Amino acid sequence: MSTVNLVSDEAADETARDVFEDIRSVRKTDFINNFWRAAANDSQEMKAVWEDIKRVMGPGALDPLTKEMIYIAVSVANACTYCAHSHTASARAKGMTDEMHAELMRVIGLAARTNHLANAMQVPVDEAFDKS
Amino acid sequence: MSTVNLVSDEAADETARDVFEDIRSVRKTDFINNFWRAAANDSQEMKAVWEDIKRVMGPGALDPLTKEMIYIAVSVANACTYCAHSHTASARAKGMTDEMHAELMRVIGLAARTNHLANAMQVPVDEAFDKS
Amino acid sequence: MSTVNLVSDEAADETARDVFEDIRSVRKTDFINNFWRAAANDSQEMKAVWEDIKRVMGPGALDPLTKEMIYIAVSVANACTYCAHSHTASARAKGMTDEMHAELMRVIGLAARTNHLANAMQVPVDEAFDKS
Amino acid sequence: MSTVNLVSDEAADETARDVFEDIRSVRKTDFINNFWRAAANDSQEMKAVWEDIKRVMGPGALDPLTKEMIYIAVSVANACTYCAHSHTASARAKGMTDEMHAELMRVIGLAARTNHLANAMQVPVDEAFDKS
Amino acid sequence: MSTVNLVSDEAADETARDVFEDIRSVRKTDFINNFWRAAANDSQEMKAVWEDIKRVMGPGALDPLTKEMIYIAVSVANACTYCAHSHTASARAKGMTDEMHAELMRVIGLAARTNHLANAMQVPVDEAFDKS
Amino acid sequence: MSTVNLVSDEAADETARDVFEDIRSVRKTDFINNFWRAAANDSQEMKAVWEDIKRVMGPGALDPLTKEMIYIAVSVANACTYCAHSHTASARAKGMTDEMHAELMRVIGLAARTNHLANAMQVPVDEAFDKS
Repeated sequence: MSTVNLVSDEAADETARDVFEDIRSVRKTDFINNFWRAAANDSQEMKAVWEDIKRVMGPGALDPLTKEMIYIAVSVANACTYCAHSHTASARAKGMTDEMHAELMRVIGLAARTNHLANAMQVPVDEAFDKS
Repeated sequence: MSTVNLVSDEAADETARDVFEDIRSVRKTDFINNFWRAAANDSQEMKAVWEDIKRVMGPGALDPLTKEMIYIAVSVANACTYCAHSHTASARAKGMTDEMHAELMRVIGLAARTNHLANAMQVPVDEAFDKS
Repeated sequence: MSTVNLVSDEAADETARDVFEDIRSVRKTDFINNFWRAAANDSQEMKAVWEDIKRVMGPGALDPLTKEMIYIAVSVANACTYCAHSHTASARAKGMTDEMHAELMRVIGLAARTNHLANAMQVPVDEAFDKS
Repeated sequence: MSTVNLVSDEAADETARDVFEDIRSVRKTDFINNFWRAAANDSQEMKAVWEDIKRVMGPGALDPLTKEMIYIAVSVANACTYCAHSHTASARAKGMTDEMHAELMRVIGLAARTNHLANAMQVPVDEAFDKS
Repeated sequence: MSTVNLVSDEAADETARDVFEDIRSVRKTDFINNFWRAAANDSQEMKAVWEDIKRVMGPGALDPLTKEMIYIAVSVANACTYCAHSHTASARAKGMTDEMHAELMRVIGLAARTNHLANAMQVPVDEAFDKS
Repeated sequence: MSTVNLVSDEAADETARDVFEDIRSVRKTDFINNFWRAAANDSQEMKAVWEDIKRVMGPGALDPLTKEMIYIAVSVANACTYCAHSHTASARAKGMTDEMHAELMRVIGLAARTNHLANAMQVPVDEAFDKS
């Protein structure tokens, strides 16, 4: 179930169709996942998000796989079901092994544990950590 | 301000003192940050968390700096003020450059944006992403 | 699946039945959505929530549709699947067009992005914003 | 305290300085709030976020004040201290009265309450709410 | 800092003053904490919240101290700084010992850890857990 | 759907099989719920989490049922679908009555409401609540 229509290739407007084509070309597959079919209801925003993804997720000071794992971490903490699924699949497609996935899970679980302890005890931030 | 006492070296019980010593020895510094002084109110749990950190955050299929950046990502999404400060400091100590930090920010911001879009539109998970 | 029974009209106690009737009368439809069938397990709390909704969500300094869109925004950030569905349906019933929904999505996505950036950089609040 | 430097006009690179100038011109004030001074550490991302804000937050199917209130709602649910302060100030600058703010608070509080109830009872989504 | 005025006894309207008096009488102290001074900006909502607290937090199938600890747990997971402080103080006033607080911290930390693991792995809910 | 395989008894490695056996023995049932079948992909972490659960969730200064209800409260605020289901089932198995469940719901709903109000108004923490 979803709160919006999933837009087919036929129903897409020109901007959305162009993004569909670019996604297919960048990913070298015909498959368009549901996020983009939902996003196509507002093709201007869809295009802005897609351009952002290309700008941010490519190689740079961090490699694309590291970025995907960071993306998963945020998605899990935000309880985004769709994102946990889609970015875990992306990370695997970019070379995440079972061992790397296992370590990712460990770090996420540990961080959540200490996040909640720090929030519960309201630990005051040490002066030594300030950069401003 | 905090909801618990910050335990000094003198007030710490034996288990907490041992953890303080181990932290100092592993990190090669005399400085004990406030999280551990707060955690020392329950030295059994403090010890369990510290052992978990040593087990999880060392080198493995992922390198320690990558793990720190994943840790930051979870902490930000969980709105943990203390953790954002302390793990950004840790990541810098492990070699995170300004360029890497900037890319980390970009990925966190982008992930949050699409997390909220996917949750808002309640996008159904594609069958292609299932592993079970 | 749910963690409680969904209470039918027959199984409802008198207080819950009265709330069912009031919902039907206010909304001018026979349909009772699952939230209320779940809430009916504790008919005192159900009644308190329903009275709160009538008090808060009617016209006032803000119009009912604006309130529904604010409600959706909170629900998305809290990752409430049910609420995203039910309040998007409510907002449409109150006149939310596709264009308004698209803009709502844009704002939610943008806010999430800057929320996470501000939390990640732990930006200190400007004195100029203080009201106390 | 913050995890990054707050960049002064003098220390800003050319892209960041241009964004500072555009902010001053759009808002008709010399004041640059800390979010932008923090964001200026990565002037490419800063520019992308600023362009996004101008694209999304102007008049459209929703008026700018409604958008600010939606922004506040997301920020509160994401526990973003800085954003709650800065966007409440923005909303007031755009005409939010005390009565409108009071109603915004009521809706946010009510939504949080039912969000948590729906998540706690794991209420199954009614078929009637599906749009896909 | 706050986004609203903190209302003094003198500035409070009649409804807010009545709630102040009731708080003082129920708690047997002259002290009014800042939450209520902030809430007094909308005395109708303030009264509704206060009545809700009296209805919900008194003795029943669960004792008042257990309820305060559940309140803390929710507040921590929602990253509510103010609430973590105020409800930890309330729980102590109702008899929470250091040992009970320590166990509360342990459970919160553990739950956060497994919450994030379950969300990360998107574990399908077992049929055995369904009550609907 | 899930992002990892659900590990059968046959596919489990020796460590995972030992944990399965211990779960069966502690809970006096043959049934292994999906969380553990998912966790078994990393049997070292699985074992660490299981040992943590046994250490934390047994009787102590708080009784096991109180701990389960605190666990539910955290899980709901973290929007963990799986955890809301599994820990509600656990709490019922440990004696949570319908009346206790109803009160738990009330406290969770109330806490969420005031959490969001306190975060929205950014209420400054009273000095009286400080313990550090």
